[in-house]
Amino acid sequence: MSFQTYPSALLEATVNEFAKLPGIGRKTALRLVLYLLRQPTSDVEKFGNTLLRLKHEIHYCKECHNISDTDVCSICADRGRDRAIICVVENIKDVMSIENTQQYKGLYHVLGGIISPMEGIGPSDLEIESLIERVSQKGGIQEIFLALSPTMEGDTTAYYIYRKLAPFSIAITTIARGIAIGNELEYADEITLGRSIVNRTVFTY
Amino acid sequence: MSFQTYPSALLEATVNEFAKLPGIGRKTALRLVLYLLRQPTSDVEKFGNTLLRLKHEIHYCKECHNISDTDVCSICADRGRDRAIICVVENIKDVMSIENTQQYKGLYHVLGGIISPMEGIGPSDLEIESLIERVSQKGGIQEIFLALSPTMEGDTTAYYIYRKLAPFSIAITTIARGIAIGNELEYADEITLGRSIVNRTVFTY
Repeated sequence: MSFQTYPSALLEATVNEFAKLPGIGRKTALRLVLYLLRQPTSDVEKFGNTLLRLKHEIHYCKECHNISDTDVCSICADRGRDRAIICVVENIKDVMSIENTQQYKGLYHVLGGIISPMEGIGPSDLEIESLIERVSQKGGIQEIFLALSPTMEGDTTAYYIYRKLAPFSIAITTIARGIAIGNELEYADEITLGRSIVNRTVFTY
Repeated sequence: MSFQTYPSALLEATVNEFAKLPGIGRKTALRLVLYLLRQPTSDVEKFGNTLLRLKHEIHYCKECHNISDTDVCSICADRGRDRAIICVVENIKDVMSIENTQQYKGLYHVLGGIISPMEGIGPSDLEIESLIERVSQKGGIQEIFLALSPTMEGDTTAYYIYRKLAPFSIAITTIARGIAIGNELEYADEITLGRSIVNRTVFTY
């Protein structure tokens, strides 16, 4: 349907709101709004009220910049976490992914993006200065673990942070690159395969 | 991510609301909410307020049951439309599709669904009685045009309405079945192909 004739201006306005979301076209938006119209009024009101609260009540942790309901997020406030290691990630989805592995017990630092000259994102647009401050002002940080994507932007960001942290006597680590578990060797790209050979580990069973 | 650790209860609540929508999983819902968090507060508030208004302010036309901003929809109120013909459709998306063709200038009647014993939808759940009332009480209706899907449920619904309208001296028509324009003959199913042979039309160019 290229030319849309909405029978109601409010219907069209609601479709417009949904169609602004990434990956949602006007046809899908209409389907979602018609679905909501069939739901109980209280459910749709709950949805609307959640959106009204979203921007006002979401906090960003003043330590790590993770999304939080409070000034300091639950991870930074957890006295059981290892405060000697800070994992640097691009965004909060990465925090969630790493938390889901249950393999990491340190703290985080959310950059809020990566350096991307193409998109006009420079170091000053990211939480890099606050990371350096955290390292210089808080005592006891022994390791900065850079968990950024293995892309050109990710590597650029990692190198920039690495240079900034060079003056501090602190270990700087990055996530292991290698063949994903379950993947066949012959389908691995040669750079990954090469790295996985250079960084081969002791066989355990 | 099978096990999700949300850093904020409000973030999780908003993800839950989006994930209730048909075809939107938790991963997509999270992506949409993180997108909204990056938008201006006024935009997200506008979205929320639209949802709050939706269920309260949307009307259903008391004539044809189409969605409307007023008691009588703009199509029923349009004195330029042909009042002798009523097109019966399943839902408002069908009204929009037919309006987009700009080939139909009559009125509509929106059933609000089709008869489906599998889903427990019977004739009394639909706006069928109100259609019969419209035909019997309004003078001058000469044709009921059944534009229902060519499925078992659509055919059942059409037959039910056909029987109910039999006592009235009124033409009952249905949409033409045939090979879609641009489709190759060899890929058409044989029932459609058969119908398109029986109902062949005069060649025009």
